[in-house]
Amino acid sequence: MKLPEKKQRWVYHAEALPQTAGEGVTRRVLAYTDGLMCVENTFEKGAVGALHHHPHTQITYVVSGAFDFTVDGVTRTVRAGDTILKEDGVEHGCVCTEAGILLDIFTPMREDFV
Amino acid sequence: MKLPEKKQRWVYHAEALPQTAGEGVTRRVLAYTDGLMCVENTFEKGAVGALHHHPHTQITYVVSGAFDFTVDGVTRTVRAGDTILKEDGVEHGCVCTEAGILLDIFTPMREDFV
Repeated sequence: MKLPEKKQRWVYHAEALPQTAGEGVTRRVLAYTDGLMCVENTFEKGAVGALHHHPHTQITYVVSGAFDFTVDGVTRTVRAGDTILKEDGVEHGCVCTEAGILLDIFTPMREDFV
Repeated sequence: MKLPEKKQRWVYHAEALPQTAGEGVTRRVLAYTDGLMCVENTFEKGAVGALHHHPHTQITYVVSGAFDFTVDGVTRTVRAGDTILKEDGVEHGCVCTEAGILLDIFTPMREDFV
């Protein structure tokens, strides 16, 4: 397994390198190009996505599980199919309350992830 | 249920308007802003995403199910966690072989979807 190449058209999950992104959190960079990046994060129950911020526009899509998500000081529970938009460097983070998967989508790509 | 507003921070699946996007295909526009849009498509088995193209850069993430996906004349089978990048107006479409969900991610947003 390895990181996908930039502009790789077909990116199979089974070939995407899993990386530790925190205690109980595994990150896989999936398809990406300069303007768009797709990153999948698998959380164990209780794992924490620490509060942070960055200048990229980000949407998080909940693939499975349940999360208490905090954006700009507001915390809400999100589940499969819910999405959260984070613009303008707003501070955000989460706590996983049922094991699951978050898909993070960035524009532009996160240069620091590859 | 209704279409989310542009720049709506919290978009819950249960509140996102389901729209028919073809026979056996239901589309939900989720969070979006000018530069990024997240659209979820639920496919019945056998449903077809007709071949088409557009100038937006798109990544499709397979949430569940199985699909025979065609991009620029090449057809491959994709399943949960796989991603497909479509740049440069390339022609693409799919056939659903096991009922499931595709998440389409666009930059910029699809003005024609709202």
